[in-house]
Amino acid sequence: MGHCGWKWGFRGSGSPPRGTLAKLKIRFKETFFPDDPFRQFKGQSLGAKWALAAQYVFPILHWAPKYSLSLFKSDLVAGLTIASLAIPQGISYAKLANLPPIIGLYSSFVPPLVYAVLGSSRDLAVGPVSIASLIMGSMLRQAVYPNNDPYLFLQLAFTSTLFAGLFQASLGILRLGFIIDFLSKATLIGFMAGAAIIVSLQQLKALLGISHFTKQMSLIPVLSSVFHKTDEWSWQTVLMGICFLVFLLLARHISMRNPKLFWISAGAPLTSVIISTALVFAFKAQHHGISVIGELKKGLNRPSWDMLRFDGHYLFVAIKTGLVTGIISLTEGIAVGRTFASLKDYQIDGNKEMMAIGLMNAVGSCTSCYVTTAVNYNAGCKTAMSNVIMALTVMVTLLFLMPLFAYTPNVVLGAIIITAVVGLIDLPAAYLVWKMDKMDFLVCACAFLGVVFISVQDGLAVAVGISIFRVLLQITRPKMEVLGNIPGTDLYRGLHQYQTARRIPGFLILAVEAPINFANTTYLNERISRFIEEENAEAGKQHALRYLILELSAVSAVDTSGITFFTDLKKSMAKRGLEVAFVNPVGEVMEKLQRANEAHGFLGPDSLFLTAGQAVLSLSSLIKEPTPTQV
Amino acid sequence: MGHCGWKWGFRGSGSPPRGTLAKLKIRFKETFFPDDPFRQFKGQSLGAKWALAAQYVFPILHWAPKYSLSLFKSDLVAGLTIASLAIPQGISYAKLANLPPIIGLYSSFVPPLVYAVLGSSRDLAVGPVSIASLIMGSMLRQAVYPNNDPYLFLQLAFTSTLFAGLFQASLGILRLGFIIDFLSKATLIGFMAGAAIIVSLQQLKALLGISHFTKQMSLIPVLSSVFHKTDEWSWQTVLMGICFLVFLLLARHISMRNPKLFWISAGAPLTSVIISTALVFAFKAQHHGISVIGELKKGLNRPSWDMLRFDGHYLFVAIKTGLVTGIISLTEGIAVGRTFASLKDYQIDGNKEMMAIGLMNAVGSCTSCYVTTAVNYNAGCKTAMSNVIMALTVMVTLLFLMPLFAYTPNVVLGAIIITAVVGLIDLPAAYLVWKMDKMDFLVCACAFLGVVFISVQDGLAVAVGISIFRVLLQITRPKMEVLGNIPGTDLYRGLHQYQTARRIPGFLILAVEAPINFANTTYLNERISRFIEEENAEAGKQHALRYLILELSAVSAVDTSGITFFTDLKKSMAKRGLEVAFVNPVGEVMEKLQRANEAHGFLGPDSLFLTAGQAVLSLSSLIKEPTPTQV
Repeated sequence: MGHCGWKWGFRGSGSPPRGTLAKLKIRFKETFFPDDPFRQFKGQSLGAKWALAAQYVFPILHWAPKYSLSLFKSDLVAGLTIASLAIPQGISYAKLANLPPIIGLYSSFVPPLVYAVLGSSRDLAVGPVSIASLIMGSMLRQAVYPNNDPYLFLQLAFTSTLFAGLFQASLGILRLGFIIDFLSKATLIGFMAGAAIIVSLQQLKALLGISHFTKQMSLIPVLSSVFHKTDEWSWQTVLMGICFLVFLLLARHISMRNPKLFWISAGAPLTSVIISTALVFAFKAQHHGISVIGELKKGLNRPSWDMLRFDGHYLFVAIKTGLVTGIISLTEGIAVGRTFASLKDYQIDGNKEMMAIGLMNAVGSCTSCYVTTAVNYNAGCKTAMSNVIMALTVMVTLLFLMPLFAYTPNVVLGAIIITAVVGLIDLPAAYLVWKMDKMDFLVCACAFLGVVFISVQDGLAVAVGISIFRVLLQITRPKMEVLGNIPGTDLYRGLHQYQTARRIPGFLILAVEAPINFANTTYLNERISRFIEEENAEAGKQHALRYLILELSAVSAVDTSGITFFTDLKKSMAKRGLEVAFVNPVGEVMEKLQRANEAHGFLGPDSLFLTAGQAVLSLSSLIKEPTPTQV
Repeated sequence: MGHCGWKWGFRGSGSPPRGTLAKLKIRFKETFFPDDPFRQFKGQSLGAKWALAAQYVFPILHWAPKYSLSLFKSDLVAGLTIASLAIPQGISYAKLANLPPIIGLYSSFVPPLVYAVLGSSRDLAVGPVSIASLIMGSMLRQAVYPNNDPYLFLQLAFTSTLFAGLFQASLGILRLGFIIDFLSKATLIGFMAGAAIIVSLQQLKALLGISHFTKQMSLIPVLSSVFHKTDEWSWQTVLMGICFLVFLLLARHISMRNPKLFWISAGAPLTSVIISTALVFAFKAQHHGISVIGELKKGLNRPSWDMLRFDGHYLFVAIKTGLVTGIISLTEGIAVGRTFASLKDYQIDGNKEMMAIGLMNAVGSCTSCYVTTAVNYNAGCKTAMSNVIMALTVMVTLLFLMPLFAYTPNVVLGAIIITAVVGLIDLPAAYLVWKMDKMDFLVCACAFLGVVFISVQDGLAVAVGISIFRVLLQITRPKMEVLGNIPGTDLYRGLHQYQTARRIPGFLILAVEAPINFANTTYLNERISRFIEEENAEAGKQHALRYLILELSAVSAVDTSGITFFTDLKKSMAKRGLEVAFVNPVGEVMEKLQRANEAHGFLGPDSLFLTAGQAVLSLSSLIKEPTPTQV
């Protein structure tokens, strides 16, 4: 009965083994090209291949030929809506990153045009986002204070943007997109909520009209700054802030309740800007304690490649900032893109999308833009044309409407940002995480507390660290289950899980549920020893263990240490008078067991079985003892 | 037929669920106390508990009462043998670490005494080792040149030793011993071989009699230094070196061939020292180009706690060096201890052993010793008493025999070191790794090349990084197998692995072979899409897929992202007209699926099965089509 696998045509022994190179090739493909992006090219003519390749690189070629008037109508409305959101948000986010407000508008002009040509999502609009802005501002501020040397700060911002773009594009080109998967959902929930609170706290400067605000970001210094400067609070600003904040939150609430009234929340920011600007202008409120944006220079983006700095000390800061903001903005962009693609049932190639976003940021860094990404505003975009409409609207604003912003009060921008980020605090999701998985909640809480009390980047680092440590811990401490027979069947299942499952006397059947490798062989050895001792202590003399059966169905891989573990286990168990049998090793594991067997000859005739049931049946017949009943 | 689990008494629904705290407690125990060290205390009287606890902390209490004269005879011989090896090696290794030779002897006196009281291995002897010495020397040399300020260098060495000890002890106390498991076998093979070569290269200085040797360690600078200083080569030294090297290697070879002649290789180093010292003394060779150790101060270790430095700049260097040497020497000590324990069938508690080694180093750092660990010399030790004998022999040497070393030539010490480290180059093991697992071999090669061409610590870092990255990659890219029915059975196995397995039309049965978590849900989504597209393209219209069956036996855990993956998969497959069923989710996965079902109600009546066979049978009966034959 042993070696049942062969009877059913196990390929490891019968057919010639595939070569090392062929196997490496397959593994390489499954690792880096799991979505097989070149599948569509197969069996096409050369011309068709070129056309497909062009469409792959420039998705615009895919949708532009089929573009219709009805699509354009939707895109026009969507583009204008997005623009009305993007203009006040762009100004606000640039201020969040300690950059001149105009940079936010520049960043809503060039990148959307690039994305319209290269991007493959139909639902996303491009522009600066709150969290990447916050991180860039706080990381660069560690190297240079924006107030001391604003030009150097701007240079560093563009340089970081370039590195963010290059890094994003190379992740895509090297098919390493899975790196962003290491930001787990739980991490993101905690991180986003923390960041939203930090961003909102920063707005207290504008909302309370404080002019000497702390330069730090975490909760405690900001709050202490707020309450030590009560003499700087301006009641006019506070009043205006509360009114507009209530208005904006109300608009948001209405739109959330009834998605058809989306236009209310979409129009509210621009409405607020217009009304508040008019109020300031009418009452000359800028002379009564209300701070305003001030003069903004008319005109489109100027080239900025001469502002990129690659010298010594600042280079490292720029690279680090680029890496972190690049990853964070990718996470947002790709995650949102994937969600909408799966909702509307089309495919997004994450790696391709990373190249598009990366190239967009690289181009942006040379045209006075800072880091941007793709976000969804629920505005009903149909194609990337909506990005073009938005960009054109921003262009008109840049060319002709800049003087109007001179009287826009900062407090309204603060209210707009708070309204925008409040949605990042997702309490129901956090509660669901708590209900599902306490460890995940711990990760989530660490990210949140780290961001709020230490710093944005440290909170993120801690959360990612814990996530990875947890995965490693799962590997170092693989689960093992003692299996028992479910009466009336020849199934073997976990004793803990199935009440009716019962032990077979003389047998210890263990299911190992992880790849066996260097990180867990020591543990497995010790844990198996303990299982055997506990079993023997319980069973007593007459039913002493005779067989240890390892159910390997769930062992997806072994490495050299794992093979050594198997051979050593055979030997050490033999010393204790136990025989070891293996059940259902999967492909790679089976192959390596066989190769090890060729080298060491450690597998006896009754060492390999296809199911635990067969192993028990076959081995019981060897010992001349009453066999357990089998079906 | 759905929800078969319940019928067989699945505990998740029937019995009351265990509380969160109880579950966390169990998980904590399985993670940090898998060997259940307190098991022996259960059901004992208070007095017995105290006695057991004392024996746990001081294993000497365990063996000392049973100690006998015959054991002492073995230990006496073994102790003297070890001492004859330890004395020349101690001097040599101290030189390797750029420390005064006498420190090597000090380090073979106090630590063995501490280990005799605290250590739990019977087979190990304590003393300095080559690789930890090499690493300590090379890391400290980055902060201060031993020739420029030997006193400061010595201070840093003691401080690093203290940190190494504290770090080792705290790993043990915090039950974090598994950290050393992250140095995989393949990593160690490559690393050890590389380090052996680096160590041997350093001996060229002594073997060729070069006085102006490079201060760097990697292959290229050393070789270029050797061949640029041919004028400094001393033929007397080279001749003497070759003779003793041949003698020592020959002795080693004979002992390897015939383990009973162990005493030949054990006695060879001391014999060489005695003969060469006599030769130098007789021929006054120190005046003819042969460099000698020179005067060594008589007397025992002096206290060195006043030499520990904790100030600013050097503190960081000392901590880093302590960490690295601490981990490396633990790896050697614990691995060897475990090997011998399993050979002689007794238990070693890795965490307890770490505390012993850690404490030993902490004490050592205050008594003029540098970092030491436990190694096996195959000298036939029976108990830790052999360490006491060795320490006493070293003590006698320190008190009375030091003047004899004044004429010992350095070239012999070099030959002794080379002979000692040549055994670290394990070519057959490397070949076995190559045969078993190409990726493991890559790790091994990286460690080797990194150590030889870059630096010892960078090579190690690279190899550990690759090992961990590889584990993470396995999780990010979990294996999925398409299963088919093995005719004549109701077993389902991988189509790639079993030639006879055949597909069931209308069904796609996928086995997922890894925990499903944040790091792989995106991949699983994309890969399943591709499986379905490929399947549909192959099957054609009449056998279009109706059911996607996920066989979850091998999914040992899910996190929040994994649950979202399940619910999203249900939805997106429904859009494509496919139903999803899950087969045999194990304990934790089942529980979470149920909790998610309570929250989202996504599991239909035919969503859960105990085996793939039952799922196919039950679902086929739903579609009124000819069902596949089942046994």
